[in-house]
Amino acid sequence: MEKDTVSSLEKTTLTMEDLISLCKQRGFVYQGSEIYGGMAGTWDYGPLGVLLKQNIVSEWKREFIQKRSNMFGCDAAILMSGKVWEASGHVEEFHDPLVEDIKTKKRYRADHLLEKHGIENVEGMSLEEMDKLIQENHIKSPDGNELGNVKQFNMMFSTRIGAAEDSSAISYLRPETAQGMFVNVKNIVDSFHPKLPFGIAQVGKAFRNEITPRDFIFRVRELEQMEIEYFIDPRKEWNEIFDTWLLDMKNWLISIGLDKNRIKEFVQPDKGRSHYSIKTVDLEFVFPFGQKELTGLAHRTDFDLKAHQKGSGVTLEYYDQETNEKVMPHVIEPSMGLDRVFLATLVSAYNKEEVSSEDGKKEERVVLKFKPHIAPITVAILPLMKKDGLAEKGDEIRKELSEEFSVMMDVSGSIGKRYRRQDEIGTPWCITVDYQTLEDNTVTIRDRDTLNQERVSILELTSKINGWLKDSRNVT
Amino acid sequence: MEKDTVSSLEKTTLTMEDLISLCKQRGFVYQGSEIYGGMAGTWDYGPLGVLLKQNIVSEWKREFIQKRSNMFGCDAAILMSGKVWEASGHVEEFHDPLVEDIKTKKRYRADHLLEKHGIENVEGMSLEEMDKLIQENHIKSPDGNELGNVKQFNMMFSTRIGAAEDSSAISYLRPETAQGMFVNVKNIVDSFHPKLPFGIAQVGKAFRNEITPRDFIFRVRELEQMEIEYFIDPRKEWNEIFDTWLLDMKNWLISIGLDKNRIKEFVQPDKGRSHYSIKTVDLEFVFPFGQKELTGLAHRTDFDLKAHQKGSGVTLEYYDQETNEKVMPHVIEPSMGLDRVFLATLVSAYNKEEVSSEDGKKEERVVLKFKPHIAPITVAILPLMKKDGLAEKGDEIRKELSEEFSVMMDVSGSIGKRYRRQDEIGTPWCITVDYQTLEDNTVTIRDRDTLNQERVSILELTSKINGWLKDSRNVT
Repeated sequence: MEKDTVSSLEKTTLTMEDLISLCKQRGFVYQGSEIYGGMAGTWDYGPLGVLLKQNIVSEWKREFIQKRSNMFGCDAAILMSGKVWEASGHVEEFHDPLVEDIKTKKRYRADHLLEKHGIENVEGMSLEEMDKLIQENHIKSPDGNELGNVKQFNMMFSTRIGAAEDSSAISYLRPETAQGMFVNVKNIVDSFHPKLPFGIAQVGKAFRNEITPRDFIFRVRELEQMEIEYFIDPRKEWNEIFDTWLLDMKNWLISIGLDKNRIKEFVQPDKGRSHYSIKTVDLEFVFPFGQKELTGLAHRTDFDLKAHQKGSGVTLEYYDQETNEKVMPHVIEPSMGLDRVFLATLVSAYNKEEVSSEDGKKEERVVLKFKPHIAPITVAILPLMKKDGLAEKGDEIRKELSEEFSVMMDVSGSIGKRYRRQDEIGTPWCITVDYQTLEDNTVTIRDRDTLNQERVSILELTSKINGWLKDSRNVT
Repeated sequence: MEKDTVSSLEKTTLTMEDLISLCKQRGFVYQGSEIYGGMAGTWDYGPLGVLLKQNIVSEWKREFIQKRSNMFGCDAAILMSGKVWEASGHVEEFHDPLVEDIKTKKRYRADHLLEKHGIENVEGMSLEEMDKLIQENHIKSPDGNELGNVKQFNMMFSTRIGAAEDSSAISYLRPETAQGMFVNVKNIVDSFHPKLPFGIAQVGKAFRNEITPRDFIFRVRELEQMEIEYFIDPRKEWNEIFDTWLLDMKNWLISIGLDKNRIKEFVQPDKGRSHYSIKTVDLEFVFPFGQKELTGLAHRTDFDLKAHQKGSGVTLEYYDQETNEKVMPHVIEPSMGLDRVFLATLVSAYNKEEVSSEDGKKEERVVLKFKPHIAPITVAILPLMKKDGLAEKGDEIRKELSEEFSVMMDVSGSIGKRYRRQDEIGTPWCITVDYQTLEDNTVTIRDRDTLNQERVSILELTSKINGWLKDSRNVT
């Protein structure tokens, strides 16, 4: 059997342009409302993006809910009572510092402008400090005009719910999924009677009116979060629980294929933390546009539960049957941005290599080296020819395998070209259907990374692939 | 081994009160923003609701995307350019007829008021016709006051996107997922080059400012849709494709456990159809509150693509390589409400039965007879005692099984009580861990429906359960 070999190219720097272009061309991510000129900060996931996202979410749920006996899923509505956001402090406090070009009236994030001019530690700065720095550094708007004073701008999207203009209620698209879990603690405790510590976990959309969305799917107006609120006994030591969560998050990110050399811990200094948090550690990731926040782990104390108890008048204390005491649990929050994890998965998987065929021909290939259990397409089926019944045989195999796996059929172009296409979308295994298949019901399976080809019986395919997927999950 | 027997109770009428109460108590569905008095038309899915919904979605994707070679997933942003909704006609046309109590100023759905007074065929009526009927029938507001004239009210939630009040753009929370697919047709064709017919499929949230949300999760302000846009060749016959979709939808609903006797076909008359549709057939379901729309199958012609081509200026025609022609595809849309399918699954699964134990004791049980592959919890693990290492042994088994299945551990109360609890949430199999388990590594598995108990080796559990799940999927 013909055997190609592969050698790593000197690690070329991955640019965001390359990645965005691959995402669009191959159907991972498209610009939102693209045919209408796009809408800044929104992105649509294409067929392969949906599959990749789905695999990430499903592994997250498997690791953090299914495998644990003290974790409970939740899927709260995006539209919540306006009172939730008053109590949580978001109406008052969820804002960004904006500064206006006094000529064009365009507004900009003051903190981003300062960072662009090389000023560090902007997070947590007061409006006055920012004003001062803008003046001292003679910072102008991107159009070269004078800037006004820095003002706060609430980032929640508001809408009116109900029919009559006068009686309808103002509410907001949730800017985070967390509050949907806090308001359901009592319901979940009443249904399942968990002991402390226990957690609620949710995957869902959140919305933020970012002034300058940027960096592809990194800073967007519509995002998806994978969040956990972990309720702990306030009378007990919490450092070990906190550290275990940090480790679990990191290990999980590596298990789905993130490059561990790109993951960095960042302990938030006092100024960077939310006022109610007594400890926050981020995991940052080295993206092509810099080292940026990927996940957050925050000790939120009892700030949220106390706020909702006060706001709603409903007791949210936990009744400890063993000691006959009522306690207000504290909360540790392991939170991840799904779109960011998705992006980090792509960045980690992206490789350029040189493939040499037996006859000495060399070719460059782009290959996404996803962990097989995360790859959008698990198996591609490539009939050697469209004719002579090979396409029909291939479709028979597709039907069988697609009962269990994500399968793509590709019949057009040379086998070499089709391999390149599958490499570029990260398909771990390609099955070639040839004339021998018609005779003895065997096919070749080609491995994306080693380029090894193995001839196997069609009857063995399902169990072989299942075995490999299991390995992929268990090996880190 | 003790063997209980079961007999159906005379089919008691399931009330919505019973169902809503079970959903809340056992953690399927809670009222949205409940501790703040609730927000009408929003519901939060609890731990078991998340699992049930997830299983429904995953079966839908498996049947309608994974198993088909011409179907493509999509996950478009909820926030889209306002131009999308102008072009689609929603800004102009997506409204409900409202009528105001001239004294209290409260507004009501005019069509619902008419229906309440026994007037039929309200759908598609003009405002004038409704006004006339309100007068002729002397219909008053629910508070007994005179009503004003019927007016149109747009049901889209609007919001402003961007920073400056003067330059920010008005947009809407999408009232349907369909448009997210129409605006991505070109992207998907460019990435995957499918031949006609092909389809795009999406699961996602949609938002409608319903004036009178009602009937639990049936008519809500925040809903989830499972929609397909199936693009067909306008030069070819479409009736057979249409009929096949109707059959496929119906069979799928039955495959996940819907009571086929409650599913009814309803061919929309001219007046009930959207103006652009040349044929619409709904599948209705007999809910406790009446026979109501569950799914819709509409031939939308080329209305949407033409509208977006005109609105965006981007060509959305399909280039047929074989005939060298450009054609504007027609669209057949199989659409389902996920929350409604969820509700119909619960209604179909709900049973009350009488259980007789060997000693002649009779007991009533509520049991949700979910198809096993749809059940939120696949296996419950019940250690006979907390002590003597039985709970530890149970947890060992839980850890092992939870790698693959949704597992719940329950250690409190008598085994009989725990069986009842699992019956009530529809767990198909309960594993009891007893003293013999410690000796020979066997457990008993009890079947939810037959009450049969079988003693099996722990080593066999995974393959046995996998076999049963496969059967559940394949048997209708």
